[in-house]
Amino acid sequence: MFPAWMKPLARAGAVALLLTPLLSLSALPEKTNPLPSWNDGAAKTAILDLVSETTTEGGENYVAPGDRIAVFDQDGTTWVSHPLYGQALFALDRLAKLAPKHPEWKTTEPFKSVLDGDHEAMAKFTEKDWLEIVAVTHAGMTTTDFAKIVADWLPKSKNPIFKRPVTELVYQPMVEVMDYLRANDFRTYIVTGGGQDFVRVYSKRVYGIPPEQVIGSSIVTKFEMVDGKPVLMRDPKLFFNDDSDGKAIGINLFIGKRPQIAFGNSDGDKEMLQWTTAGDGARLGLLVLHDDAKREVAYGPADGLPDTKVGTFSQALMDTAKQSGWIVTSMKNDWNRIFSRDD
Amino acid sequence: MFPAWMKPLARAGAVALLLTPLLSLSALPEKTNPLPSWNDGAAKTAILDLVSETTTEGGENYVAPGDRIAVFDQDGTTWVSHPLYGQALFALDRLAKLAPKHPEWKTTEPFKSVLDGDHEAMAKFTEKDWLEIVAVTHAGMTTTDFAKIVADWLPKSKNPIFKRPVTELVYQPMVEVMDYLRANDFRTYIVTGGGQDFVRVYSKRVYGIPPEQVIGSSIVTKFEMVDGKPVLMRDPKLFFNDDSDGKAIGINLFIGKRPQIAFGNSDGDKEMLQWTTAGDGARLGLLVLHDDAKREVAYGPADGLPDTKVGTFSQALMDTAKQSGWIVTSMKNDWNRIFSRDD
Repeated sequence: MFPAWMKPLARAGAVALLLTPLLSLSALPEKTNPLPSWNDGAAKTAILDLVSETTTEGGENYVAPGDRIAVFDQDGTTWVSHPLYGQALFALDRLAKLAPKHPEWKTTEPFKSVLDGDHEAMAKFTEKDWLEIVAVTHAGMTTTDFAKIVADWLPKSKNPIFKRPVTELVYQPMVEVMDYLRANDFRTYIVTGGGQDFVRVYSKRVYGIPPEQVIGSSIVTKFEMVDGKPVLMRDPKLFFNDDSDGKAIGINLFIGKRPQIAFGNSDGDKEMLQWTTAGDGARLGLLVLHDDAKREVAYGPADGLPDTKVGTFSQALMDTAKQSGWIVTSMKNDWNRIFSRDD
Repeated sequence: MFPAWMKPLARAGAVALLLTPLLSLSALPEKTNPLPSWNDGAAKTAILDLVSETTTEGGENYVAPGDRIAVFDQDGTTWVSHPLYGQALFALDRLAKLAPKHPEWKTTEPFKSVLDGDHEAMAKFTEKDWLEIVAVTHAGMTTTDFAKIVADWLPKSKNPIFKRPVTELVYQPMVEVMDYLRANDFRTYIVTGGGQDFVRVYSKRVYGIPPEQVIGSSIVTKFEMVDGKPVLMRDPKLFFNDDSDGKAIGINLFIGKRPQIAFGNSDGDKEMLQWTTAGDGARLGLLVLHDDAKREVAYGPADGLPDTKVGTFSQALMDTAKQSGWIVTSMKNDWNRIFSRDD
C-alpha cells in the first residue's frame, strides 16, 4: 500500500499529516467525519445511509443529483425557539420601537401587555392576538423596507435565555448535515411556519440556503407604482400558512418534487415528514427531541419532558414517529456540540 | 500570436479547424453564434449585451452566478397560444372525455357550448365560465393523478391551426435564449398565467426548466390521508393568479430575487417587465410581437395588427414599452426560424 520508505511513517500515523496539505482543507473533514458534532448512533447512521443509498450510481434507490431534495424546519430544528420564536422576539422589539408613535397601545390589548412586559399575559395570547401584533410589525411597508428592518434588527437581537443574537443560536449538528447533503448534491430547503420574507434575510449567511430555497408563511403583497417605480407593499393579511398540512402543500407548491429527507422537531412538522417518507425508494424523517436542559432547553411533553406551547413535541407525535420508522434524535445523547458558535 | 509554423494555417483560417476537436462540441456553437435563429438587430444585440454586462467580472453591472435570473412568460412567448391557450385545449378535450359521465352537461352552460363545438359561444365565455370548466377538468383528483392525466394528453394534443401537439409548437429562438442564458449561469424560470402544475409536467423536457423553476397560477390543494398515505387533493378554488401584478408578486414569492431579464408578449406581462427593469444595474425587458401571419399568427392590436382576446398586445403596452426602453421583437423580422421542430 505504501512505498517502502513511507512504511515507518505510516505506522506512526504520519502519512495523514504528510498528505494533509495536498487535500482541500474543507474537503478533509467531510471525508474523514462528515458529521463531527453527531455521536455515533442510530440518527447519524440513518443520515449517512440515506445519502449513501440515494447517491450510489446503479443502486436501486439512486436519485439523480437534480432531484435530491432535503427539507428543514427552522424553529427548534435548526435554531433555538425558546422561550419564544426568533420572529416573535423581532415582533416584540419592533412593537416597542413603534410604541411612541402609537400612544393608544398603552391602553389597548394585546399591545398593552407587550409594552408592560407582562409575560404571563403574553403566554396566554391567542393566535388572533399574535396576528394583530404581526399586522403592525410586519405589514404596511414595502418588501424592500421590511428586509432592511429585519437585517438591522438581527445583530441587535437578544435571546432572553442565552443572551445572544438569534443568528448565533444555530445548531452546529444541523449546519453539518446541510453542508454534508449539499456536498452530495442535495438541494437544501428551509420549510418553516415562520415568515418566508423574514428567514430569507439571513438564510444564505446563516445556513448557506439562498432565498429561493426558503419556503415559509407569507402575508399578502400588493403591486403598486410609487413615483413611477413598482413596489410590493406588505398587507396585514395571511396569504399562506406554511405549518402542519401547509408544509406538505408548500413543498409541492414551491418545489414540485418530494424530498428524500426531512428534519423537524414538533407537531407542526408531522405532515412534512409524512409527505416525505411516503415516497418511493429511500426516504428519511428525523425529529429533534429537546431533552437537554443543561445545554439547551428541555420540552416535550413527549417522554415526560416539560410541556410547552412553543414547539410542542407531543406523545402522539412520538407514537407516529415510532410507527412510521422516523428517527428521533436526542439532543442530549446524539449531539456532542449544540451551537455553531460556542464562545 | 501564433507560432511561426502556424501562420500560413492561421491566414487560411485553418487554426479554428485544427483547434475544434479540442473544444467541447456543445460550447462551440455558443462561441460562434449563440442565437442562430435570431437575425442581427436590436433584439439580438440587447440580449447579448445584457449577458455580457452581467457576466463580465469586474464590470460595474456584474452579477454573481447564483443571482442571475431570467424569467419567461409561456403562452405566446415560448410557445403558440392561438387560437386558444394550450391549457384551454386540454380543458376542452378533458371535458369531452368526461361528458359521458355527466349527461347534464348537454343542457347546461358553459359545458353545452363546448360539447356542441360552438366556437362563437366559446369566444364569448366569461372568466366565470372558464373557471367552471377548470373546476371540472383540473380539480377533484390528486396532484399525482392530475400530472398523469396531463402527461397522457400531451402527445395526443392537437393545435387546431398547426395540427400538431402543443409541445411541438415551441419557439426555437426562445429555446436558444434559454440555453444561452443557462450556459452563462442564469437560472431560467417560466412565469406563466397558466397552471403551474400543468406546465411542470413538460417544462424539463420541453424547455430544460425543472418543476421548481415553474411559477404559475394554482388552485388550492388539500392534504389528506388516504389508506394511511398522504395525498394532495386539487380543490376547485383559485389559490394564486400569476398574471399581471401577480407575475411580479409571484417572482418575489417564489424566487425572492429580481430577474435581470424578462420575456413576455402581452398585456399580462407588463408588471413582470416593470418589476424586472426597475432593478439596479443592467436589466432587459423584451416583448414578442406576433406580426407574422404567414409563419405563425398575427395579432395585437398594437401597430394595427388584428385584435384578439388571447394574448392581447395593446397599443398601451406598446407605448409603455417605448417609454420604458423595452425591446419589441418582431417575429417576422427578428426570427429566421419560428419552431423548434420544423418538419
